[in-house]
Amino acid sequence: MAKDKKLVSEITSMDEDFAQWYTDICKKAELIEYTSVKGCMVIRPYGYAIWENIQHILDTTFKELGHENVCMPMFIPESLLQKEKDHVEGFAPEVAWVTHGGSEKLEDRLCVRPTSETLFCEHYANIVHSYRDLPKLYNQWVSVVRWEKTTRPFLRSREFLWQEGHTIHATAEEAIEETERMLNVYADFCEKSLAMPVVKGKKTESDKFAGAVSTYAIEALMHDGKALQAGTSHYFGDGFAKAFGIEYTDKENKRVNPHQTSWGVTTRLIGAVIMTHGDNSGLVLPPAVAPIQAVIVPIAQHKEGVLDKANELLNELKAAGIRVKLDDSENSPGWKFAEYEMKGVPVRIEIGPRDIEENQCIIAVRYSGEKKTVALGDLDVYVKALLEKEIPEGMFNKAAENRANRTYTCTSLDEITKALEEKGDGFVKAMWCGDEACEDEIKEKTGVGSRCIPFEQENLSDKCICCGKPAKHMVYWGKAY
Amino acid sequence: MAKDKKLVSEITSMDEDFAQWYTDICKKAELIEYTSVKGCMVIRPYGYAIWENIQHILDTTFKELGHENVCMPMFIPESLLQKEKDHVEGFAPEVAWVTHGGSEKLEDRLCVRPTSETLFCEHYANIVHSYRDLPKLYNQWVSVVRWEKTTRPFLRSREFLWQEGHTIHATAEEAIEETERMLNVYADFCEKSLAMPVVKGKKTESDKFAGAVSTYAIEALMHDGKALQAGTSHYFGDGFAKAFGIEYTDKENKRVNPHQTSWGVTTRLIGAVIMTHGDNSGLVLPPAVAPIQAVIVPIAQHKEGVLDKANELLNELKAAGIRVKLDDSENSPGWKFAEYEMKGVPVRIEIGPRDIEENQCIIAVRYSGEKKTVALGDLDVYVKALLEKEIPEGMFNKAAENRANRTYTCTSLDEITKALEEKGDGFVKAMWCGDEACEDEIKEKTGVGSRCIPFEQENLSDKCICCGKPAKHMVYWGKAY
Repeated sequence: MAKDKKLVSEITSMDEDFAQWYTDICKKAELIEYTSVKGCMVIRPYGYAIWENIQHILDTTFKELGHENVCMPMFIPESLLQKEKDHVEGFAPEVAWVTHGGSEKLEDRLCVRPTSETLFCEHYANIVHSYRDLPKLYNQWVSVVRWEKTTRPFLRSREFLWQEGHTIHATAEEAIEETERMLNVYADFCEKSLAMPVVKGKKTESDKFAGAVSTYAIEALMHDGKALQAGTSHYFGDGFAKAFGIEYTDKENKRVNPHQTSWGVTTRLIGAVIMTHGDNSGLVLPPAVAPIQAVIVPIAQHKEGVLDKANELLNELKAAGIRVKLDDSENSPGWKFAEYEMKGVPVRIEIGPRDIEENQCIIAVRYSGEKKTVALGDLDVYVKALLEKEIPEGMFNKAAENRANRTYTCTSLDEITKALEEKGDGFVKAMWCGDEACEDEIKEKTGVGSRCIPFEQENLSDKCICCGKPAKHMVYWGKAY
Repeated sequence: MAKDKKLVSEITSMDEDFAQWYTDICKKAELIEYTSVKGCMVIRPYGYAIWENIQHILDTTFKELGHENVCMPMFIPESLLQKEKDHVEGFAPEVAWVTHGGSEKLEDRLCVRPTSETLFCEHYANIVHSYRDLPKLYNQWVSVVRWEKTTRPFLRSREFLWQEGHTIHATAEEAIEETERMLNVYADFCEKSLAMPVVKGKKTESDKFAGAVSTYAIEALMHDGKALQAGTSHYFGDGFAKAFGIEYTDKENKRVNPHQTSWGVTTRLIGAVIMTHGDNSGLVLPPAVAPIQAVIVPIAQHKEGVLDKANELLNELKAAGIRVKLDDSENSPGWKFAEYEMKGVPVRIEIGPRDIEENQCIIAVRYSGEKKTVALGDLDVYVKALLEKEIPEGMFNKAAENRANRTYTCTSLDEITKALEEKGDGFVKAMWCGDEACEDEIKEKTGVGSRCIPFEQENLSDKCICCGKPAKHMVYWGKAY
C-alpha cells in the first residue's frame, strides 16, 4: 500500500497533555482556524455544520414551546447598559467599546453586546402595555463579545455564537416555571442529542448572573475531570423591569411590573462534546449533531462492481434520511479510516469485493471501536438503529461511567484533597452551610469551587464540610473550564 | 358589531407620502421597532420570520450547489483591512471602530466588519496550498455594520443582516462562472419566491464594489418608480489573492494565484417586498416567505359547530404543509380582516354557520382583493395551488406590469426629463458610450444614475444619449434607494 498522504492521526495523547490534545483536535478535525484577530477564530465548515445541527434541534424545540426568534442590535449605548446596577458592574469591565463611527467620535460610546438583557428590556418597555401583551417568549441566535484575557477555541473566546432567550411574564410563578422549563430543555438536549450527562442545579449567590435573582445551570464533567458549565437559565424577578420602567396594566386595572428570564447555550457545547467523547484518534461525535453520520469506504475500489455497490448503499442510506458520505477519492483506505476517525464520524461502512460476494459489509462504530459484519439486506434499518439508539445510549453510558468514577463523596476538606490527588480532578459532592466565606475557604484550601446546588439533594452529613455548622445544601464542587 | 379595538388600517396612503407609508407598514405590520441605538432596529418576530424563510430557501439552494457555511470573526484589525488598496478606500470611511477592550486601549484598532473579504482572504492564505484544495465555496449568515448617515428600516441601516458568499477557484473562468451562477440564483429567488421581477446586469466601472474586477447586480423597480439593488455578485480576479499572498501549486507544479468571488443579499429584500407588493391596506407577502400563508377567520364563532369546523380546516391545511393560523380570539371579524391584511397574509379563509350548511367557505386573496366561494372538499389542494402557483404568478405579473408602465425608452436627455415629469420616476432605457463623464452628466441633468448594463441588450440607437458618440451599451437608469 502506498504511504499515507497525510498523517491525520498525529495528535498529542490526551493522557500526556490534555490541553494540547484538545487544541490538536480542533485543528486536525478542521473545526476551527486561528485568525489575526486575537481571541477570535474561524469556525470552519465541519465545525459550523455541528453548530447548525445543534441550532436546528434546539430551535425546533424552542418554537414548539411557543418561542419566537427576533434580532436585536449588536450595539448597546453605554447609558443603556448602565440602567441596571448589578448588570453593568458584571459586564462593563469585559466589553469591547466602539468609540468612532467612520471619522466621527461618538458622544455615547457603544459596547458590542456581551449579552442583550438591556436591549430586550428597552424593547419590552416599548411593546408591553397590558396583560394581554404577556408573555413574550423571545429568542435570538447571534454572536456576543466578552474581552477575555485567556482564550481557547469554543471554550472561551472573545466572540462566540450563542442563543439568548429573553422572556417576560405577568407573574413570578410563570417566569420561574419558564426558567426551570428551559433548563430542562437544555439538560434533555445534552443528554439525548449530545449523549452527555449533566447535573441540574442552582448556582450559589456568588456565582449568579449579573442582575439575576437566581441562576440555574447544567454542569458536565469533562474527560480530564474538570467541570464545564453547559447552559444557564436565569430568573430576574422584576428587577430589570423596575430599572427599565416596564409596566403593564393587569386584569384589575393596576399598573404592575412584569417578571423576566433569560437563558442561553453557546458554541462551548462543541468544546464539551470534544472533551466528553473524544479520544486519542480524534473527535467522537454524537449522531444527532454529526455533519456526517456514516461514511462508506470502498475497499479495492477499482475492482469491478465495488463502486456500484457502494453507490447503491449510499442511495439506500440517503433515502432513509441518514447524513451519509461515500469517499471514493484516491486516498488509501487506511488514510480514509484515520481521517474519518479524526472527524468523529459515528459509523464507518467498509465494502469490498469479498463483502459483495458474501452480501455483507463491515461496520465500525467510532465510539466503541467495535467492528461487525452485517448482512446487506435492510442495512438502512440497521444503521438507523445504531445512530438513533445504540450509539447515543452507549456514548451516554460511557460518559456517565467516567463521571461516576470521578465523582467523590467527601465529608472533610482533607478527604477532598486526598481524592483529587489520588484519583485526579473530578466532581466533589460535599455539604455546605450556605456561607460565602466557607465557599471561598473551600476553594482556597482544596482548589475546587462550587459548581451548583443540585436539584437532586443527598444528605451526606448534617455539617458544613468547612465550618462544621449545620449544612444547608449538598453541593457539587469542581475545577471549571 | 362592537367597535373595532384597534384601527390597524390607519396608515398613510402610499400616493400621499410613499416614504411615510413605508415606515407605517414596517411599524404596524410589526416588522421592526426602533431602539436607542441610532440607525439600528429590532427585527420583531413577524419580520424575522420572513427573514428565516428567505434564509431557508437560499441556504438550501447554496448547499445544493456545493457551498458550505462558516463563521468568521466580526472584527477586522485595521492593518488587515488595509491590505487591499481599493477595498480599504471604499470601506474605511464608513466603519465602526472598536478602540478599547475592557479598560485596555487596543494597539491595532478593530473595525466591525462592513464585509468580510479581508478575513476570508487571510483564511484562504492559511488553508489553500494545492490545486486539490480548490475550489472553496464558503458562505456565512451574519450581520455587518456600515456607518450610514441617513437610515431607513431594512433599506439602509447601520447594522444589517445578510449572507456573504466568498469563493476561491483555480481559474478565472471558474470564478466568473460562479459569479454569474450566483447572480442567477438571486434572480430566480426574487422572481419565483418573492414574485419580484428583476433586471440582471453589470454595474458600470464607477459603481463597482471596492476591489472588484466586475460587479453584477439584480435591479428591481419599486412601486414608486425608484430602483432598488436587490443583490450583487462580484468577480475579483486575482487582485485580492495577490494582496493577501494566496498561492497554490497547480498541476504543473507552478505556484499561481487563485481567483475569487463574493456575493450577497441582505434584509433589504424585505424592504423590496414591501415596496413591490404592498398597498394601502398594508403588507402583501409572497406565499413562499410569508410566516402565515393562510389565516382562518371564523364568523359568528360562538354558534354551534363553527369553531369545530374551523379547527377541522386548520388541521387539514396543516397536514398539507401549509403555514396556517386559526384566529379564534375575541376580536371582531372586521378587526381580524384588517389585521391580517396589514400583515399581508396571502389567503384568508372565512367560515360561518351558513357556509357550513352549504359545505363551503369564502376565500379572500390578499394581493388581488378577490373573494370566492369555494367548496370544502379538497380545500387543501385548492389552497396549495393558490399559494404555489396562482398567487405568486399573479403577484409577479402585477409587479411586472407596474414595471412595464414605468419603464421609458429614451433617445435624448430631454425625453428622459419629460418622461420622468409626466409619468413619474421609473426605469429609463438609453444608450451610453461607456464614458464616465457622460454617466455623470446624465445624472446631473436628469437625476437618474446608471443602474446596470443589462445582459439582455437592445439596440435603441447607435449613439450615446449624452455625447452623441458611438454607443457601447444599452443601460438601465433610475433613481435608487
